Amino acid sequence: MKKTKNFNFNDKDEAKLLHKLVQELSNPKSYNSVIHRSNHNTPMPSVETLNEIVEDLRAIIFPGYFGQSELTFETIKYYTGAMLDEVHRNLSEQILRGMCFECNSLENTNCDSCAKLANQLSLQFLLQLTELRKILSTDVEAAYIGDPAAKSRGETIFCYPSVYALTNHRIAHELYKLKIPLIPRIISELSHSETGIDIHPGAEIGEFFFMDHGTGIVIGETSIIGKRVRLYQGVTLGAKSFPLDQNGNPIKGIPRHPIVEDDVIIYAGATILGRITIGKGSVIGGNLWVTDDVPPQSKLIQRY
Amino acid sequence: MKKTKNFNFNDKDEAKLLHKLVQELSNPKSYNSVIHRSNHNTPMPSVETLNEIVEDLRAIIFPGYFGQSELTFETIKYYTGAMLDEVHRNLSEQILRGMCFECNSLENTNCDSCAKLANQLSLQFLLQLTELRKILSTDVEAAYIGDPAAKSRGETIFCYPSVYALTNHRIAHELYKLKIPLIPRIISELSHSETGIDIHPGAEIGEFFFMDHGTGIVIGETSIIGKRVRLYQGVTLGAKSFPLDQNGNPIKGIPRHPIVEDDVIIYAGATILGRITIGKGSVIGGNLWVTDDVPPQSKLIQRY
Amino acid sequence: MKKTKNFNFNDKDEAKLLHKLVQELSNPKSYNSVIHRSNHNTPMPSVETLNEIVEDLRAIIFPGYFGQSELTFETIKYYTGAMLDEVHRNLSEQILRGMCFECNSLENTNCDSCAKLANQLSLQFLLQLTELRKILSTDVEAAYIGDPAAKSRGETIFCYPSVYALTNHRIAHELYKLKIPLIPRIISELSHSETGIDIHPGAEIGEFFFMDHGTGIVIGETSIIGKRVRLYQGVTLGAKSFPLDQNGNPIKGIPRHPIVEDDVIIYAGATILGRITIGKGSVIGGNLWVTDDVPPQSKLIQRY
Amino acid sequence: MKKTKNFNFNDKDEAKLLHKLVQELSNPKSYNSVIHRSNHNTPMPSVETLNEIVEDLRAIIFPGYFGQSELTFETIKYYTGAMLDEVHRNLSEQILRGMCFECNSLENTNCDSCAKLANQLSLQFLLQLTELRKILSTDVEAAYIGDPAAKSRGETIFCYPSVYALTNHRIAHELYKLKIPLIPRIISELSHSETGIDIHPGAEIGEFFFMDHGTGIVIGETSIIGKRVRLYQGVTLGAKSFPLDQNGNPIKGIPRHPIVEDDVIIYAGATILGRITIGKGSVIGGNLWVTDDVPPQSKLIQRY
Amino acid sequence: MKKTKNFNFNDKDEAKLLHKLVQELSNPKSYNSVIHRSNHNTPMPSVETLNEIVEDLRAIIFPGYFGQSELTFETIKYYTGAMLDEVHRNLSEQILRGMCFECNSLENTNCDSCAKLANQLSLQFLLQLTELRKILSTDVEAAYIGDPAAKSRGETIFCYPSVYALTNHRIAHELYKLKIPLIPRIISELSHSETGIDIHPGAEIGEFFFMDHGTGIVIGETSIIGKRVRLYQGVTLGAKSFPLDQNGNPIKGIPRHPIVEDDVIIYAGATILGRITIGKGSVIGGNLWVTDDVPPQSKLIQRY
Amino acid sequence: MKKTKNFNFNDKDEAKLLHKLVQELSNPKSYNSVIHRSNHNTPMPSVETLNEIVEDLRAIIFPGYFGQSELTFETIKYYTGAMLDEVHRNLSEQILRGMCFECNSLENTNCDSCAKLANQLSLQFLLQLTELRKILSTDVEAAYIGDPAAKSRGETIFCYPSVYALTNHRIAHELYKLKIPLIPRIISELSHSETGIDIHPGAEIGEFFFMDHGTGIVIGETSIIGKRVRLYQGVTLGAKSFPLDQNGNPIKGIPRHPIVEDDVIIYAGATILGRITIGKGSVIGGNLWVTDDVPPQSKLIQRY
Repeated sequence: MKKTKNFNFNDKDEAKLLHKLVQELSNPKSYNSVIHRSNHNTPMPSVETLNEIVEDLRAIIFPGYFGQSELTFETIKYYTGAMLDEVHRNLSEQILRGMCFECNSLENTNCDSCAKLANQLSLQFLLQLTELRKILSTDVEAAYIGDPAAKSRGETIFCYPSVYALTNHRIAHELYKLKIPLIPRIISELSHSETGIDIHPGAEIGEFFFMDHGTGIVIGETSIIGKRVRLYQGVTLGAKSFPLDQNGNPIKGIPRHPIVEDDVIIYAGATILGRITIGKGSVIGGNLWVTDDVPPQSKLIQRY
Repeated sequence: MKKTKNFNFNDKDEAKLLHKLVQELSNPKSYNSVIHRSNHNTPMPSVETLNEIVEDLRAIIFPGYFGQSELTFETIKYYTGAMLDEVHRNLSEQILRGMCFECNSLENTNCDSCAKLANQLSLQFLLQLTELRKILSTDVEAAYIGDPAAKSRGETIFCYPSVYALTNHRIAHELYKLKIPLIPRIISELSHSETGIDIHPGAEIGEFFFMDHGTGIVIGETSIIGKRVRLYQGVTLGAKSFPLDQNGNPIKGIPRHPIVEDDVIIYAGATILGRITIGKGSVIGGNLWVTDDVPPQSKLIQRY
Repeated sequence: MKKTKNFNFNDKDEAKLLHKLVQELSNPKSYNSVIHRSNHNTPMPSVETLNEIVEDLRAIIFPGYFGQSELTFETIKYYTGAMLDEVHRNLSEQILRGMCFECNSLENTNCDSCAKLANQLSLQFLLQLTELRKILSTDVEAAYIGDPAAKSRGETIFCYPSVYALTNHRIAHELYKLKIPLIPRIISELSHSETGIDIHPGAEIGEFFFMDHGTGIVIGETSIIGKRVRLYQGVTLGAKSFPLDQNGNPIKGIPRHPIVEDDVIIYAGATILGRITIGKGSVIGGNLWVTDDVPPQSKLIQRY
Repeated sequence: MKKTKNFNFNDKDEAKLLHKLVQELSNPKSYNSVIHRSNHNTPMPSVETLNEIVEDLRAIIFPGYFGQSELTFETIKYYTGAMLDEVHRNLSEQILRGMCFECNSLENTNCDSCAKLANQLSLQFLLQLTELRKILSTDVEAAYIGDPAAKSRGETIFCYPSVYALTNHRIAHELYKLKIPLIPRIISELSHSETGIDIHPGAEIGEFFFMDHGTGIVIGETSIIGKRVRLYQGVTLGAKSFPLDQNGNPIKGIPRHPIVEDDVIIYAGATILGRITIGKGSVIGGNLWVTDDVPPQSKLIQRY
Repeated sequence: MKKTKNFNFNDKDEAKLLHKLVQELSNPKSYNSVIHRSNHNTPMPSVETLNEIVEDLRAIIFPGYFGQSELTFETIKYYTGAMLDEVHRNLSEQILRGMCFECNSLENTNCDSCAKLANQLSLQFLLQLTELRKILSTDVEAAYIGDPAAKSRGETIFCYPSVYALTNHRIAHELYKLKIPLIPRIISELSHSETGIDIHPGAEIGEFFFMDHGTGIVIGETSIIGKRVRLYQGVTLGAKSFPLDQNGNPIKGIPRHPIVEDDVIIYAGATILGRITIGKGSVIGGNLWVTDDVPPQSKLIQRY
Repeated sequence: MKKTKNFNFNDKDEAKLLHKLVQELSNPKSYNSVIHRSNHNTPMPSVETLNEIVEDLRAIIFPGYFGQSELTFETIKYYTGAMLDEVHRNLSEQILRGMCFECNSLENTNCDSCAKLANQLSLQFLLQLTELRKILSTDVEAAYIGDPAAKSRGETIFCYPSVYALTNHRIAHELYKLKIPLIPRIISELSHSETGIDIHPGAEIGEFFFMDHGTGIVIGETSIIGKRVRLYQGVTLGAKSFPLDQNGNPIKGIPRHPIVEDDVIIYAGATILGRITIGKGSVIGGNLWVTDDVPPQSKLIQRY
């Protein structure tokens, strides 16, 4: 063990120091800018519960792959019904927590109506599930077609980061469209952390989308992606810069990410920045840095 | 809370809507393309059990680092024996599930012989463990030599993504060579998700291999890597393009990834595509895009 | 199931083979280079406990966001005190394990003094917590200002990989400065695995630091980063090469990573290598490969 | 395996039978008398949470024995404060659930006021904790004095069913006095199941109470027990009979269990029934059946 | 610490002693009479899984009390269906394990047919569930009527050992009637351990049965109990003696426990032994020892 | 909900009241008689770890019934060795904690020698395991012979409270003989709580012992039981009275419980008190109260 200064606190000093430290850390001056004050006694959204909700939805959308794997024509109905009921209850609660997280009203007067609204937003979301399954089945097809290493469609459902991250994204995006705060972002980060793919819930993504390998892909909030697009690992669809308001804060919500039209392929590590358009059918080579519009059917390649 | 449309379902509507949704989602038309029908009542492989198997193997290969850490000459035998027996039992079962996942035979006639085969494949795999330990010890050496920040060989075993991912890969690769379906891929994804390093189980990798930092590295299915090779984060050994069959599906199994010869170093973010050869002793600079053969002892660097 | 060679072991063969395998794997010749011999009966550091310690510290630093979320002026003191006491006890133990991991002394004579030292190092670390909170609050501010998609400061604390990884890093860096072996590295890898951001505990990072998206960022051991710096995903601050000693081993501890001065922005995928200086206020474009000093206020952009 | 009738269902029959069974069991006619209809969307009390509450209270009352065992003058305050805050929050919620379980009002109009009441009842209970600790310390003393096998007071706190069950009882009894429904009963059953001692939350028990071994002891709802009483295993303080109302239902709440005065000892297996009085200082021999008043200082013994 | 002999083993001795001990304990001579040799590679029944099965059945029988507590007319069907499917799958497996536990055939020839039989026995059992619910609802009624301390029927379902133990018993008894080995016994022991009530799965028990407090009640294998019977804690319905065969082993399966006719009440601690009949409507006082027939409408009381 | 007094605290009052309560409960005056002051920073023994130790020992003694159930001649050695090593390590630590619990020395001077002693006591205990297995196999035989309902010896090992409680007892008794404090008692309470059988670790019990049903059996510290003895549920072998010392405390360690000679049967609910002798071959009827010596071959029966 390398030598370090020997501090020589005795037991009494130690107790005093710890006590003093608790006082300091519990001083509002110290914690004021980093504390969350629970509104209306509502706790923070639970990342763990949101993870369970997403896993239940995965099991509903892809029956037999996740959750109970031995299903029959009859029992699929029971499992779907029971899981949906649970998702609805849990999601309503988490949506409410998300709403309280952002709520500025100091009085409790609207809590009941918020709870009702949360319940209805959850239901509204669930009614999109059939559509979600349909579009995700095109993403499965795109993964199978797009990767020669894929042995079967089932393998892409069970193992591929692309399908995993898109399931989270398409769920998060529906919740984002319902203007639910915080929750969509948490769901995105769950798959970001699992796959290294970072898709902002706001991004609009067309059917038959495939991200091969995926690690390091970034798709910004206002991106719009067409049908049958394929991205490789490390591709960025980002903002080039963003205007600030008078206080020097970035102005939120301005379109600032690329539009990628149908049938585009973007190879590993390419960086596409700003509200530009990558025209239909273009191919962007790896490691490129693109900040201007690209006409349809272009092929851009790095030289060395 | 920002304003959203107020849907105003009452309780009865809600029950009806949920009921209708269950009907829809349980309709074969909806689920037919995304359901897994369990063959022969065999459940899906268990990602959790496979993770335990890999962790047990890690503890067998690197005794004292993982699993029980206080071992003696005598007790190492007991722990190794007990873990091996458990791995054998669990792995046989998971291999069988992998086989059933891919099985097309609708009759149950071969299930017994599949179970026997799975058992023998598991055994066949285990017999490679001494060799696996030997080659992994060269990877440990490569990490220690290759990273000035490494304080000891033990630190690279216990903390380094490179050694972690290679342990998974070398296990998965042995299972891949035995033509076991799905299981090798799951084992690869376990370390992909943990480290951001995506090595296809099919890739052949020589001894003394080191991946510094690792995040974003992709090594494709038919890659062949020599001895004493070093990759940095974000390096891709990928396919450039792939031929389609008459139905527009990619032809599977064709060699399409690079051959990297002995003593090559490839720096961060370089993208090497296609069945090309990076000659012995070459150095490829970061962020390069390489699609042609590189002669031995070359040094390629990006200019700006 | 594709055809594989049928090995045809019977039960007896199997028992014999497994037995022989256990003998082989328990042979010192096989395990000698990859075994950890526990010094003084001290087990390996526990990754799980270290994770709990870091989560407790996160809850202390950002009260109400993590851990108990409904806090009052009074109760915050109780929770802080109880968590601090537990962190202190657990961290002392883990520091001791880290010290034993590296200890070369074969006799047990110093174990008691090591235990005392570990306790004092833990305390010494805890006394930095108020400062840690202060600097992390600037990182929160930087994330909020730096990302137009951020709806509130709270969202960056609860959801952003940048704040998550920096919390781990700033903890690990304090422990690194106290010359505690192994433990800082484990804490770094915890967030590397979670976020894909790999910051060596040795790196010195100024206030108001922000890493957007983050996946694939690498910041080497001897990097020095100024104030108000912003990095995007996939940026590397790495070593270009490193001198070897007479035995061919890399010489450890030499400054070999970049100095990044105040107010620098580095875009996605740029690779900055060697002990060079990126001058104050410079902007480095994405996917660049930079190995020479960059004067202040420069703007480097990739061309295609 | 012994012969059983071979039923010979095929797979289709099986699916049909299970489906029919689900229909039957989901028919209101079948479940109507045994279903719990959740009032106001409040779930059932959670036995698991109540167990945690009781364990937290045990740790508050007997610091150092349960919960964190290494306490100092300073840290005891932090742990006590944090646990109390959590108990208060959790107990309020469980009290509310208990109230909803019994609530007959079909409208939701009072839920808010119920929640407030539950919070205040929880607080009211907590304010008794100092007293509870005081009386429980006399029970500890009684166990130590009363059992020659007890090596120390601490052993009785940590290991003795008597102290364990009395802690639960004295908690449950305070909640019972606050007229909180269901919750006290659940807390009693937790220790009944653990120790085999069944004390109804309604029983009034004086200080310095000791139950040796304890298994099979029953103390009925309206029992009144004086100071320094000692019971052995299998003692019953029960009701002899109870009047029915016009519908044949037992009239609830009538005093029907014994009064046991100060300093009484009752040996193993004695059965004391009805609202009788066992006079001060009496000794009741084992296995007796007592249904009449016993004058003070009596000694009753079974003959054979 | 009290003085004990100081053994003074050194580390080498210790290793040797442990090694020798392992040899001894692994010697067939040592373990032969106490080892279970797994038949046909089938593991022992899982107590944990059986507990889950029983808890699922409890949730099916008493909907809203156990399992999901917020049920509607529609969702009850989903939950019931999903739980039934899972119980069926798990129970089939456990029945098979029970059959293998008892199987004497050394060849594997019948394993497939055993698996089919297990599946059908599980189904056969499930078809009794509607009846089980019906009779258990009479037990609930009996508990409510029989205990003046019971505030509602729901309280007896949720909290009373009597209803808990009878649910286990009536399940175990159905399995016993199907001649399934071991499994019924395990289910009985689960509630024996929880409640202190020991009912052998073979006992036949009529409707409206109630056991007040319950601890220590024993009901033997061949007992027959009529309708509306009430037992108090510590009552034994046992065997007086039993004939031995020529080898001195007890002859199994002979009727040797009491017949208790309708409307009998037996008070705490009474011991009823042998194949005698307690006539309809009799009352047996506490702590009595009864080994002869008791005519209808008798009242037996202990004197002192 | 029944009416309760409405306390009408507001939020401020509540905070104040809780704060005051924390002060009170953290006041040494309040906690002084019920606190455990950790000696030498050693935590309390862990009931959970002791439970694991006992379950491991159960798996070692009865291989195939508990723990891994599919064992072969070869693998039994590995499992036994690995479990023994773990039990030794864990038990040494728990013995040390037990010693610290009782230690009166305020200085730390002996902690190292205590740790060594604990290690040697653990080893000394383990060396009895072969003998323990031998005598427990006679208890299994006694259960099989003694209960006509037992279908096989294996059933008694896997399901019978008698074998379960005796395994705990015979372990606890060996530790008691080594004068290890507290730990034996905790092990006894583990099975007391599980089975309702309360055997003090000090009791000496001969081979072929069987307790039918078991609930409520109590066997006191200084009891001596011969060979082939059978007890039924609710039997007490207790103390009649005990002498007090000058301070009114019971004098510890005096022989005060019965001696039960070989081949005695004691029926349900009998209470045997004091240092008396039940002569060889006697039969004691149920529910009796016995406080005098019983000559050999006696038959005592209750009359009514």
